[in-house]
Amino acid sequence: MTERPLRLYDYAASCNCYKVRLLLAHLGIRYERIPIDIFAGETLTEEYARINPMRTTPVLQTPDGNYLVESNAILLYLSRGTEYLPDGSFELAEVVRWLIYEQTDVIPMIGGLRFRLLTGRLSPADPAAVRRAAGAQEVFELLDDHLSAREFFVADRYTIADMAIYGYTHLAHEAGLDVTPFRWLRAWLDRVVRQRGYIEDVEPYGANAAPGAGSSVYD
Amino acid sequence: MTERPLRLYDYAASCNCYKVRLLLAHLGIRYERIPIDIFAGETLTEEYARINPMRTTPVLQTPDGNYLVESNAILLYLSRGTEYLPDGSFELAEVVRWLIYEQTDVIPMIGGLRFRLLTGRLSPADPAAVRRAAGAQEVFELLDDHLSAREFFVADRYTIADMAIYGYTHLAHEAGLDVTPFRWLRAWLDRVVRQRGYIEDVEPYGANAAPGAGSSVYD
Repeated sequence: MTERPLRLYDYAASCNCYKVRLLLAHLGIRYERIPIDIFAGETLTEEYARINPMRTTPVLQTPDGNYLVESNAILLYLSRGTEYLPDGSFELAEVVRWLIYEQTDVIPMIGGLRFRLLTGRLSPADPAAVRRAAGAQEVFELLDDHLSAREFFVADRYTIADMAIYGYTHLAHEAGLDVTPFRWLRAWLDRVVRQRGYIEDVEPYGANAAPGAGSSVYD
Repeated sequence: MTERPLRLYDYAASCNCYKVRLLLAHLGIRYERIPIDIFAGETLTEEYARINPMRTTPVLQTPDGNYLVESNAILLYLSRGTEYLPDGSFELAEVVRWLIYEQTDVIPMIGGLRFRLLTGRLSPADPAAVRRAAGAQEVFELLDDHLSAREFFVADRYTIADMAIYGYTHLAHEAGLDVTPFRWLRAWLDRVVRQRGYIEDVEPYGANAAPGAGSSVYD
Protein backbone atom coordinates (compact mmCIF):
# COMPACT_ATOMS: atom_id res chain seq x y z
CA MET A 1 0.00 0.00 0.00
CA THR A 2 1.18 3.47 -0.84
CA GLU A 3 0.91 6.04 1.93
CA ARG A 4 -1.59 8.74 1.24
CA PRO A 5 -0.25 12.30 1.07
CA LEU A 6 -1.11 14.74 3.84
CA ARG A 7 -4.50 16.25 3.15
CA LEU A 8 -5.45 19.70 4.48
CA TYR A 9 -9.08 20.76 4.74
CA ASP A 10 -8.56 24.43 4.29
CA TYR A 11 -10.40 27.77 4.08
CA ALA A 12 -8.29 30.29 2.20
CA ALA A 13 -9.37 33.41 4.14
CA SER A 14 -8.75 31.87 7.55
CA CYS A 15 -5.44 32.67 9.20
CA ASN A 16 -5.85 29.49 11.26
CA CYS A 17 -5.54 27.64 7.97
CA TYR A 18 -2.80 29.98 6.72
CA LYS A 19 -0.65 29.14 9.77
CA VAL A 20 -0.60 25.50 8.68
CA ARG A 21 0.11 26.37 5.04
CA LEU A 22 2.98 28.57 6.26
CA LEU A 23 4.57 25.74 8.26
CA LEU A 24 4.14 23.31 5.37
CA ALA A 25 5.89 25.84 3.11
CA HIS A 26 8.78 26.21 5.58
CA LEU A 27 9.08 22.43 5.72
CA GLY A 28 8.79 22.04 1.95
CA ILE A 29 6.15 19.33 2.36
CA ARG A 30 3.74 18.65 -0.49
CA TYR A 31 0.13 18.08 0.46
CA GLU A 32 -3.33 17.89 -0.99
CA ARG A 33 -5.41 20.96 -0.29
CA ILE A 34 -9.17 20.45 0.01
CA PRO A 35 -10.89 23.84 -0.15
CA ILE A 36 -13.72 24.14 2.37
CA ASP A 37 -16.03 27.10 1.96
CA ILE A 38 -17.31 27.50 5.49
CA PHE A 39 -19.85 30.14 4.47
CA ALA A 40 -21.35 27.91 1.80
CA GLY A 41 -22.24 25.49 4.59
CA GLU A 42 -19.50 23.01 3.79
CA THR A 43 -18.61 22.56 7.48
CA LEU A 44 -22.26 21.99 8.39
CA THR A 45 -22.75 18.68 6.58
CA GLU A 46 -22.98 15.26 8.22
CA GLU A 47 -19.92 14.24 6.24
CA TYR A 48 -17.85 17.09 7.67
CA ALA A 49 -19.04 16.31 11.21
CA ARG A 50 -17.54 12.84 10.81
CA ILE A 51 -14.21 14.44 9.91
CA ASN A 52 -14.46 17.08 12.64
CA PRO A 53 -17.33 17.22 15.16
CA MET A 54 -16.17 20.73 16.11
CA ARG A 55 -16.81 21.78 12.48
CA THR A 56 -13.76 24.04 12.40
CA THR A 57 -11.05 24.43 9.79
CA PRO A 58 -8.27 23.48 9.30
CA VAL A 59 -8.31 19.70 9.63
CA LEU A 60 -5.30 17.59 8.74
CA GLN A 61 -5.65 14.03 7.50
CA THR A 62 -2.46 12.15 8.25
CA PRO A 63 -0.94 9.56 5.88
CA ASP A 64 -2.54 6.74 7.91
CA GLY A 65 -5.98 8.30 7.53
CA ASN A 66 -6.49 9.86 10.96
CA TYR A 67 -7.92 13.33 11.33
CA LEU A 68 -6.35 16.01 13.50
CA VAL A 69 -8.25 19.21 14.34
CA GLU A 70 -7.21 22.53 15.91
CA SER A 71 -4.71 24.59 13.93
CA ASN A 72 -2.10 24.79 16.67
CA ALA A 73 -2.27 21.05 17.38
CA ILE A 74 -1.64 20.50 13.68
CA LEU A 75 1.38 22.81 13.85
CA LEU A 76 2.74 20.76 16.74
CA TYR A 77 2.20 17.45 14.95
CA LEU A 78 3.87 18.63 11.74
CA SER A 79 6.81 20.34 13.41
CA ARG A 80 7.74 17.52 15.80
CA GLY A 81 11.36 16.57 15.27
CA THR A 82 12.08 19.61 13.07
CA GLU A 83 13.93 22.86 13.77
CA TYR A 84 10.58 24.58 14.32
CA LEU A 85 9.77 22.84 17.61
CA PRO A 86 12.16 22.64 20.56
CA ASP A 87 12.20 19.29 22.30
CA GLY A 88 13.24 20.25 25.83
CA SER A 89 10.34 20.01 28.26
CA PHE A 90 10.47 23.61 29.45
CA GLU A 91 10.74 25.09 25.97
CA LEU A 92 8.09 22.75 24.60
CA ALA A 93 5.79 23.85 27.43
CA GLU A 94 6.53 27.49 26.61
CA VAL A 95 5.57 26.86 22.99
CA VAL A 96 2.28 25.35 24.17
CA ARG A 97 1.73 28.31 26.47
CA TRP A 98 1.87 30.67 23.44
CA LEU A 99 -0.23 28.34 21.30
CA ILE A 100 -2.94 28.61 23.97
CA TYR A 101 -2.57 32.37 24.35
CA GLU A 102 -2.98 32.77 20.61
CA GLN A 103 -6.31 30.94 20.71
CA THR A 104 -7.66 32.59 23.88
CA ASP A 105 -6.51 36.18 23.30
CA VAL A 106 -5.04 36.90 19.86
CA ILE A 107 -7.85 35.24 17.91
CA PRO A 108 -10.89 36.76 19.65
CA MET A 109 -9.41 40.25 19.72
CA ILE A 110 -7.64 40.49 16.36
CA GLY A 111 -9.03 37.63 14.26
CA GLY A 112 -12.59 38.04 15.49
CA LEU A 113 -12.54 41.80 14.92
CA ARG A 114 -10.97 41.46 11.46
CA PHE A 115 -13.64 39.01 10.38
CA ARG A 116 -16.53 41.11 11.70
CA LEU A 117 -15.29 44.33 10.09
CA LEU A 118 -14.36 42.78 6.73
CA THR A 119 -17.70 41.03 6.36
CA GLY A 120 -19.91 43.87 7.59
CA ARG A 121 -21.02 42.28 10.87
CA LEU A 122 -19.63 45.25 12.83
CA SER A 123 -18.63 48.85 12.08
CA PRO A 124 -15.53 50.28 13.78
CA ALA A 125 -17.65 52.48 16.08
CA ASP A 126 -19.89 49.68 17.36
CA PRO A 127 -19.32 49.10 21.10
CA ALA A 128 -18.51 45.43 20.45
CA ALA A 129 -15.82 46.50 17.96
CA VAL A 130 -14.43 49.10 20.35
CA ARG A 131 -14.19 46.48 23.11
CA ARG A 132 -12.29 44.08 20.88
CA ALA A 133 -9.98 46.85 19.66
CA ALA A 134 -9.17 47.73 23.29
CA GLY A 135 -8.47 44.06 23.99
CA ALA A 136 -6.20 43.98 20.94
CA GLN A 137 -4.15 46.85 22.39
CA GLU A 138 -3.54 44.79 25.52
CA VAL A 139 -2.49 41.86 23.36
CA PHE A 140 -0.06 44.06 21.39
CA GLU A 141 1.41 45.44 24.61
CA LEU A 142 1.99 41.99 26.02
CA LEU A 143 3.53 40.68 22.79
CA ASP A 144 5.68 43.80 22.35
CA ASP A 145 6.91 43.60 25.93
CA HIS A 146 7.83 39.93 25.51
CA LEU A 147 9.65 40.64 22.23
CA SER A 148 11.59 43.58 23.68
CA ALA A 149 13.96 41.07 25.27
CA ARG A 150 14.20 38.40 22.56
CA GLU A 151 14.08 37.84 18.81
CA PHE A 152 11.43 35.11 18.79
CA PHE A 153 8.78 33.96 21.28
CA VAL A 154 10.53 30.85 22.59
CA ALA A 155 14.02 29.38 22.65
CA ASP A 156 15.69 32.24 20.73
CA ARG A 157 14.66 30.76 17.45
CA TYR A 158 11.78 30.76 14.99
CA THR A 159 9.23 28.15 16.10
CA ILE A 160 5.57 27.30 15.61
CA ALA A 161 4.82 29.71 18.48
CA ASP A 162 5.89 32.52 16.14
CA MET A 163 3.91 31.11 13.22
CA ALA A 164 0.78 30.80 15.35
CA ILE A 165 0.93 34.36 16.64
CA TYR A 166 1.97 35.73 13.26
CA GLY A 167 -1.17 34.33 11.60
CA TYR A 168 -3.67 36.96 12.72
CA THR A 169 -1.22 39.58 14.03
CA HIS A 170 0.27 40.27 10.60
CA LEU A 171 -3.19 41.23 9.31
CA ALA A 172 -4.06 43.48 12.25
CA HIS A 173 -4.45 46.42 9.85
CA GLU A 174 -7.41 44.58 8.30
CA ALA A 175 -9.00 44.82 11.75
CA GLY A 176 -8.42 48.58 11.76
CA LEU A 177 -5.59 48.15 14.26
CA ASP A 178 -2.30 50.04 14.12
CA VAL A 179 0.87 48.30 15.29
CA THR A 180 3.08 51.34 14.55
CA PRO A 181 3.60 52.12 18.28
CA PHE A 182 4.87 48.61 18.96
CA ARG A 183 8.45 48.63 17.67
CA TRP A 184 9.51 45.22 18.95
CA LEU A 185 6.42 43.62 17.54
CA ARG A 186 7.03 45.31 14.18
CA ALA A 187 10.65 44.17 14.11
CA TRP A 188 9.50 40.62 14.83
CA LEU A 189 6.87 40.75 12.06
CA ASP A 190 9.66 41.72 9.64
CA ARG A 191 11.83 38.91 11.00
CA VAL A 192 9.16 36.30 10.26
CA VAL A 193 8.89 37.45 6.64
CA ARG A 194 12.62 36.81 6.18
CA GLN A 195 12.42 33.15 7.22
CA ARG A 196 13.29 30.54 4.59
CA GLY A 197 10.25 29.34 2.69
CA TYR A 198 7.94 32.10 3.95
CA ILE A 199 4.67 32.52 2.06
CA GLU A 200 1.63 34.72 2.41
CA ASP A 201 -1.42 33.49 0.56
CA VAL A 202 -4.37 34.57 2.73
CA GLU A 203 -7.27 35.34 0.42
CA PRO A 204 -10.05 37.90 1.00
CA TYR A 205 -13.37 36.71 2.37
CA GLY A 206 -15.72 35.86 -0.48
CA ALA A 207 -19.11 37.51 -0.97
CA ASN A 208 -20.81 34.55 0.68
CA ALA A 209 -19.19 35.46 4.02
CA ALA A 210 -21.72 38.28 4.36
CA PRO A 211 -23.91 38.26 7.50
CA GLY A 212 -26.44 35.44 7.57
CA ALA A 213 -24.31 32.83 5.84
CA GLY A 214 -24.41 29.47 7.57
CA SER A 215 -21.33 28.72 9.63
CA SER A 216 -20.93 27.28 13.07
CA VAL A 217 -17.55 28.88 13.47
CA TYR A 218 -17.67 32.61 12.91
CA ASP A 219 -21.19 33.62 13.92
CA MET B 1 24.18 24.15 45.16
CA THR B 2 21.03 22.33 46.15
CA GLU B 3 18.21 22.44 43.64
CA ARG B 4 15.24 24.42 44.76
CA PRO B 5 11.96 22.52 45.08
CA LEU B 6 9.18 23.19 42.61
CA ARG B 7 7.25 26.25 43.72
CA LEU B 8 3.60 26.73 42.76
CA TYR B 9 1.97 30.16 42.92
CA ASP B 10 -1.53 29.03 43.61
CA TYR B 11 -5.07 30.30 44.24
CA ALA B 12 -7.07 27.67 46.11
CA ALA B 13 -10.48 28.39 44.53
CA SER B 14 -9.18 28.29 40.96
CA CYS B 15 -9.61 25.04 39.09
CA ASN B 16 -6.74 26.10 36.83
CA CYS B 17 -4.56 25.83 39.93
CA TYR B 18 -6.32 22.67 41.10
CA LYS B 19 -5.45 20.92 37.83
CA VAL B 20 -1.76 21.36 38.60
CA ARG B 21 -2.19 20.24 42.22
CA LEU B 22 -4.02 17.16 40.92
CA LEU B 23 -1.18 16.21 38.57
CA LEU B 24 1.41 16.78 41.28
CA ALA B 25 -0.62 14.49 43.58
CA HIS B 26 -0.77 11.78 40.89
CA LEU B 27 3.00 12.10 40.42
CA GLY B 28 3.68 12.15 44.17
CA ILE B 29 5.90 15.20 43.77
CA ARG B 30 6.47 17.46 46.76
CA TYR B 31 6.40 21.19 46.13
CA GLU B 32 6.19 24.50 47.85
CA ARG B 33 2.80 26.12 47.57
CA ILE B 34 2.68 29.92 47.59
CA PRO B 35 -0.90 31.06 48.17
CA ILE B 36 -1.85 34.01 45.95
CA ASP B 37 -5.09 35.77 46.80
CA ILE B 38 -5.98 37.23 43.44
CA PHE B 39 -8.88 39.23 44.90
CA ALA B 40 -6.67 40.85 47.52
CA GLY B 41 -4.70 42.34 44.62
CA GLU B 42 -1.76 39.98 44.98
CA THR B 43 -1.51 39.46 41.21
CA LEU B 44 -1.59 43.21 40.57
CA THR B 45 1.74 44.09 42.17
CA GLU B 46 4.93 44.98 40.28
CA GLU B 47 6.58 41.99 41.91
CA TYR B 48 3.96 39.61 40.52
CA ALA B 49 4.21 41.16 37.04
CA ARG B 50 7.90 40.23 37.04
CA ILE B 51 6.92 36.62 37.76
CA ASN B 52 4.04 36.65 35.28
CA PRO B 53 3.26 39.65 33.05
CA MET B 54 -0.11 38.03 32.27
CA ARG B 55 -0.92 38.23 36.02
CA THR B 56 -2.67 34.84 35.98
CA THR B 57 -2.40 31.91 38.37
CA PRO B 58 -1.00 29.30 38.54
CA VAL B 59 2.68 29.96 37.92
CA LEU B 60 5.30 27.26 38.36
CA GLN B 61 8.86 28.07 39.35
CA THR B 62 11.13 25.28 38.17
CA PRO B 63 14.13 24.03 40.16
CA ASP B 64 16.48 26.19 38.09
CA GLY B 65 14.46 29.29 38.90
CA ASN B 66 12.52 29.81 35.67
CA TYR B 67 8.85 30.70 35.70
CA LEU B 68 6.26 28.91 33.61
CA VAL B 69 2.75 30.33 33.19
CA GLU B 70 -0.51 28.90 31.80
CA SER B 71 -1.97 25.96 33.70
CA ASN B 72 -2.02 23.58 30.75
CA ALA B 73 1.56 24.39 29.77
CA ILE B 74 2.54 23.58 33.36
CA LEU B 75 0.70 20.24 33.08
CA LEU B 76 2.67 19.46 29.93
CA TYR B 77 6.00 20.38 31.50
CA LEU B 78 5.40 18.31 34.63
CA SER B 79 4.01 15.26 32.83
CA ARG B 80 6.71 14.99 30.15
CA GLY B 81 8.24 11.53 30.28
CA THR B 82 5.55 10.17 32.62
CA GLU B 83 2.58 7.89 32.02
CA TYR B 84 0.32 10.96 31.93
CA LEU B 85 1.62 12.28 28.59
CA PRO B 86 1.90 10.18 25.43
CA ASP B 87 5.05 10.81 23.43
CA GLY B 88 3.94 9.90 19.90
CA SER B 89 3.51 12.99 17.75
CA PHE B 90 -0.11 12.37 16.83
CA GLU B 91 -1.21 11.62 20.38
CA LEU B 92 0.81 14.49 21.81
CA ALA B 93 -0.88 16.79 19.29
CA GLU B 94 -4.28 15.43 20.31
CA VAL B 95 -3.47 16.19 23.95
CA VAL B 96 -2.59 19.75 22.95
CA ARG B 97 -5.80 20.00 20.96
CA TRP B 98 -7.82 19.27 24.12
CA LEU B 99 -5.65 21.54 26.27
CA ILE B 100 -6.56 24.36 23.89
CA TYR B 101 -10.25 23.43 23.77
CA GLU B 102 -10.36 23.48 27.55
CA GLN B 103 -9.09 27.06 27.62
CA THR B 104 -11.20 28.37 24.71
CA ASP B 105 -14.50 26.62 25.45
CA VAL B 106 -14.68 24.80 28.80
CA ILE B 107 -13.30 27.68 30.86
CA PRO B 108 -15.42 30.55 29.52
CA MET B 109 -18.63 28.54 29.59
CA ILE B 110 -18.29 26.51 32.79
CA GLY B 111 -15.50 28.17 34.78
CA GLY B 112 -16.56 31.69 33.92
CA LEU B 113 -20.19 31.00 34.76
CA ARG B 114 -19.31 29.25 38.03
CA PHE B 115 -17.22 32.19 39.16
CA ARG B 116 -19.83 34.79 38.27
CA LEU B 117 -22.66 32.94 40.01
CA LEU B 118 -20.69 32.00 43.13
CA THR B 119 -19.45 35.55 43.67
CA GLY B 120 -22.68 37.36 42.86
CA ARG B 121 -21.60 38.97 39.60
CA LEU B 122 -24.49 37.29 37.76
CA SER B 123 -27.82 35.66 38.68
CA PRO B 124 -28.91 32.52 36.83
CA ALA B 125 -31.61 34.43 34.90
CA ASP B 126 -29.30 37.18 33.62
CA PRO B 127 -28.99 37.00 29.82
CA ALA B 128 -25.19 36.73 30.11
CA ALA B 129 -25.60 33.72 32.42
CA VAL B 130 -28.17 32.12 30.11
CA ARG B 131 -25.81 32.54 27.15
CA ARG B 132 -22.95 30.87 29.00
CA ALA B 133 -25.21 28.06 30.21
CA ALA B 134 -26.28 27.40 26.61
CA GLY B 135 -22.63 27.35 25.57
CA ALA B 136 -21.93 24.89 28.39
CA GLN B 137 -24.58 22.53 26.99
CA GLU B 138 -22.74 22.51 23.65
CA VAL B 139 -19.49 21.76 25.48
CA PHE B 140 -21.11 18.87 27.38
CA GLU B 141 -22.55 17.45 24.16
CA LEU B 142 -19.19 17.55 22.44
CA LEU B 143 -17.37 15.98 25.41
CA ASP B 144 -20.07 13.34 25.89
CA ASP B 145 -20.01 12.42 22.22
CA HIS B 146 -16.23 12.08 22.26
CA LEU B 147 -16.34 9.92 25.40
CA SER B 148 -19.08 7.67 24.01
CA ALA B 149 -16.41 5.84 22.02
CA ARG B 150 -13.49 5.83 24.48
CA GLU B 151 -12.60 5.74 28.17
CA PHE B 152 -10.33 8.79 28.20
CA PHE B 153 -9.82 11.77 25.91
CA VAL B 154 -6.61 10.65 24.21
CA ALA B 155 -4.63 7.45 23.70
CA ASP B 156 -7.03 5.21 25.68
CA ARG B 157 -5.43 6.17 28.92
CA TYR B 158 -5.64 8.82 31.62
CA THR B 159 -3.55 11.85 30.55
CA ILE B 160 -3.24 15.54 31.30
CA ALA B 161 -5.99 16.12 28.71
CA ASP B 162 -8.38 14.44 31.16
CA MET B 163 -7.02 16.38 34.12
CA ALA B 164 -7.38 19.68 32.27
CA ILE B 165 -10.99 19.06 31.25
CA TYR B 166 -11.87 17.57 34.64
CA GLY B 167 -10.82 20.74 36.46
CA TYR B 168 -13.89 22.87 35.78
CA THR B 169 -16.20 20.16 34.46
CA HIS B 170 -16.35 18.32 37.78
CA LEU B 171 -17.71 21.46 39.44
CA ALA B 172 -20.33 22.19 36.78
CA HIS B 173 -23.06 21.92 39.43
CA GLU B 174 -21.57 25.00 41.09
CA ALA B 175 -22.35 26.80 37.84
CA GLY B 176 -25.97 25.63 38.06
CA LEU B 177 -25.33 23.11 35.29
CA ASP B 178 -26.67 19.55 35.28
CA VAL B 179 -24.59 16.80 33.68
CA THR B 180 -27.17 14.08 34.45
CA PRO B 181 -28.22 13.74 30.78
CA PHE B 182 -24.62 13.10 29.71
CA ARG B 183 -23.98 9.49 30.67
CA TRP B 184 -20.59 9.07 29.02
CA LEU B 185 -19.35 12.26 30.59
CA ARG B 186 -20.61 11.13 34.01
CA ALA B 187 -18.93 7.74 33.66
CA TRP B 188 -15.68 9.49 32.77
CA LEU B 189 -15.95 11.84 35.76
CA ASP B 190 -16.25 8.74 37.98
CA ARG B 191 -13.29 7.17 36.22
CA VAL B 192 -11.06 10.15 37.00
CA VAL B 193 -11.90 9.95 40.71
CA ARG B 194 -10.67 6.35 40.77
CA GLN B 195 -7.17 7.21 39.47
CA ARG B 196 -4.25 6.56 41.80
CA GLY B 197 -3.36 9.60 43.89
CA TYR B 198 -6.54 11.53 43.04
CA ILE B 199 -7.27 14.54 45.25
CA GLU B 200 -9.93 17.20 45.36
CA ASP B 201 -9.03 20.28 47.36
CA VAL B 202 -10.73 23.16 45.56
CA GLU B 203 -11.73 25.73 48.17
CA PRO B 204 -14.71 28.09 48.04
CA TYR B 205 -14.18 31.65 46.90
CA GLY B 206 -13.45 33.90 49.86
CA ALA B 207 -15.54 36.93 50.79
CA ASN B 208 -13.03 39.20 49.06
CA ALA B 209 -13.96 37.71 45.68
CA ALA B 210 -17.17 39.77 45.79
CA PRO B 211 -17.78 42.17 42.87
CA GLY B 212 -15.39 45.10 42.80
CA ALA B 213 -12.34 43.29 44.12
CA GLY B 214 -9.21 44.05 42.15
CA SER B 215 -8.20 41.29 39.79
CA SER B 216 -7.03 41.41 36.21
CA VAL B 217 -8.10 37.85 35.64
CA TYR B 218 -11.74 37.30 36.47
CA ASP B 219 -13.34 40.68 35.85
